[in-house]
Amino acid sequence: MSPPVVTLTTDFGLADGFVGAMKGVALGIFPEITLIDITHDVPPQDIRAGGLILGAACPYFPDGTIHVAVVDPGVGSDRRAILVQDAKDNLFLGPDNGLLTFALDREGARVRELANRGWFLEEPSATFHGRDVFVPAAARLASGAAPADAGPEVPDAVRLPFPVPLIEVEEEENRTRIHGVIVHIDRFGNLITNVGRALFDKAWTAGFGVGARVILKNRAVAGWVRYYEEAGAAREDAEEKSGALFNSWGLLEVFVPSGNAAELLDARVDEHVTIEIHA
Amino acid sequence: MSPPVVTLTTDFGLADGFVGAMKGVALGIFPEITLIDITHDVPPQDIRAGGLILGAACPYFPDGTIHVAVVDPGVGSDRRAILVQDAKDNLFLGPDNGLLTFALDREGARVRELANRGWFLEEPSATFHGRDVFVPAAARLASGAAPADAGPEVPDAVRLPFPVPLIEVEEEENRTRIHGVIVHIDRFGNLITNVGRALFDKAWTAGFGVGARVILKNRAVAGWVRYYEEAGAAREDAEEKSGALFNSWGLLEVFVPSGNAAELLDARVDEHVTIEIHA
Amino acid sequence: MSPPVVTLTTDFGLADGFVGAMKGVALGIFPEITLIDITHDVPPQDIRAGGLILGAACPYFPDGTIHVAVVDPGVGSDRRAILVQDAKDNLFLGPDNGLLTFALDREGARVRELANRGWFLEEPSATFHGRDVFVPAAARLASGAAPADAGPEVPDAVRLPFPVPLIEVEEEENRTRIHGVIVHIDRFGNLITNVGRALFDKAWTAGFGVGARVILKNRAVAGWVRYYEEAGAAREDAEEKSGALFNSWGLLEVFVPSGNAAELLDARVDEHVTIEIHA
Repeated sequence: MSPPVVTLTTDFGLADGFVGAMKGVALGIFPEITLIDITHDVPPQDIRAGGLILGAACPYFPDGTIHVAVVDPGVGSDRRAILVQDAKDNLFLGPDNGLLTFALDREGARVRELANRGWFLEEPSATFHGRDVFVPAAARLASGAAPADAGPEVPDAVRLPFPVPLIEVEEEENRTRIHGVIVHIDRFGNLITNVGRALFDKAWTAGFGVGARVILKNRAVAGWVRYYEEAGAAREDAEEKSGALFNSWGLLEVFVPSGNAAELLDARVDEHVTIEIHA
Repeated sequence: MSPPVVTLTTDFGLADGFVGAMKGVALGIFPEITLIDITHDVPPQDIRAGGLILGAACPYFPDGTIHVAVVDPGVGSDRRAILVQDAKDNLFLGPDNGLLTFALDREGARVRELANRGWFLEEPSATFHGRDVFVPAAARLASGAAPADAGPEVPDAVRLPFPVPLIEVEEEENRTRIHGVIVHIDRFGNLITNVGRALFDKAWTAGFGVGARVILKNRAVAGWVRYYEEAGAAREDAEEKSGALFNSWGLLEVFVPSGNAAELLDARVDEHVTIEIHA
Repeated sequence: MSPPVVTLTTDFGLADGFVGAMKGVALGIFPEITLIDITHDVPPQDIRAGGLILGAACPYFPDGTIHVAVVDPGVGSDRRAILVQDAKDNLFLGPDNGLLTFALDREGARVRELANRGWFLEEPSATFHGRDVFVPAAARLASGAAPADAGPEVPDAVRLPFPVPLIEVEEEENRTRIHGVIVHIDRFGNLITNVGRALFDKAWTAGFGVGARVILKNRAVAGWVRYYEEAGAAREDAEEKSGALFNSWGLLEVFVPSGNAAELLDARVDEHVTIEIHA
């Protein structure tokens, strides 16, 4: 059996060699390690974005993968380090600052403090626990150390409040509304919302839905489609071209075909998006 | 014998974890896989740039390498997925939208549709075939699946028209001209044209060349040199400092030593470049 | 025993496929090679930054690692290629232009010319020695070639003058000053100086230090702290929030907690920073 894969998700960027140093430490501890970058371009100190990106990517890794996540404005303070283990023996290591909220919600999640100093570099710095604490611990786990030896169980891991979409039923108007927000803008400028397919299906069924439209900035997005090119490429302005679909993360996404929706629609993270379902 | 290397060329960027998810899928199917990134920074939906970059890099990989290329504005539509196999058993997987034109031109190229659903993730999404179709197929091929099982042969794969340089002989003036265009600007700001060394040699011989100069924006580039520093670093303005050489892709390139030619000469992709050969 | 790790540090960027081509060459020569990117985002042709970043990352790799560094404005000219071997059998390959100054200063450093043409690609280009010279040589070394076969010893490798911090003792004022400069700004906007902890300790002891403050642009940085969050997050303006600490490279760093110090304090590489130690 292959040893588990170790993934890295950070806000360290690729320019300064920080990620390289982490990989050097890992290889020194466990030369056979397989290291995969999820991203190192989480916006600096954006804990929510870090969790969102790793939460979306981790289901595509084999069971038993070890995920290291470091977006850590409190590094060096007394914030804890934690290790989350889920029912499929995936491990998630990171600071206890809400970054791993998505992991706490995974089936069978159990949390321990990452407190076993024997797993870390000697004399960890106060500013770079990715290199000195999290990656060395992950390398030891990859080479066979037992998660149970990480430290005591943690009953009160920090949770980041994540915006929850709201369903509003307007019975008089025969209309059901889902109030969501944009939680991420990807490199194509696509606007990813917090509205998942399951929630939409629930609202659709409850509201006896026969049609739906997506509203952003008080204007309806042009089309609800199954894939990008299906949207109205022939249309003139950005609003008319724009489309909405459930994307590869299973979330409602507003886009402009072959264009940058964030720029063309002047949209931002945290902006409201409404889905109107009519009966 | 080592299993074949799998390379990835996409416009997904590194920020959003899309590439990480693809690698997770690959490792789940074939844990021993060797994955190499060519680039994930193809400008969004720029099919021509994607083909150019992979076309320039792929000759440096060992025979039998599997190249996955995904610049795919039509993902989810009825555009086909294809697999090109060349005489050295290199495989190229990607959407049938012209991205793989360079591969179709490789010696012994044979094209099949990539239609074997048993190779894909179950229920592929309509928006992320890199993760759900192309990478799982590549992982199966790397682990020993036969290219012939991909699907039926494709006689009419889509070709992207690529600007072809033109040779013009002006007999009265004893001058031969090559009319080319800038096809790529690299991270140093170097202007890479579509004029290859073989074409230049042909024009040079046909035109009884004794000298040549490169003309951009109606001004002659200062020097024709063998390496960057040979150009006139002592000169004052950008035009006077600029040089031209055949670069590491074998293409004529205009540059400014230790400077950004694209910025200093205000040049863009698709702009014309003329090479004047005089007898 | 695992074969040695090979690291890559360049200014090639990740957009154009140059790094991919280098990896293809390495895998063709030695399929079992482990390749780790330190960074490819050294600012174009910034030799000092390249050396600084690799110098900071390399101590975290296992003994016997092979480091390839290519920031090479003189590629194709008669500048030499060199190989530095240190007392721990780490190897450093790069152009002899000062980039490897940090390696020359490592314990037991011995320098050879990298002149063994049998290690290179046939007919190396004049513009891309990363692909044609340095990486193929590194791959051969990783697969067992002897460093002594690289070429003749080099007694006069090029050294880049690196700004050295100055200690000034003002006995009348009972004050010791360290005059340093900002040598690097990282992706968080943190200002990394050339003042190391050992030098500071020396000045502190010599000056009978009881307190110290950091001065940038004639204003004192707010706090001297042990970790980022310890700085005054509650304060109002950037100067008041700013802090200083010894960072993960062991160098004095000025920062703004959860902010970009370079932007907020309008600071640049090469700017002066003074540390005042008072008795």
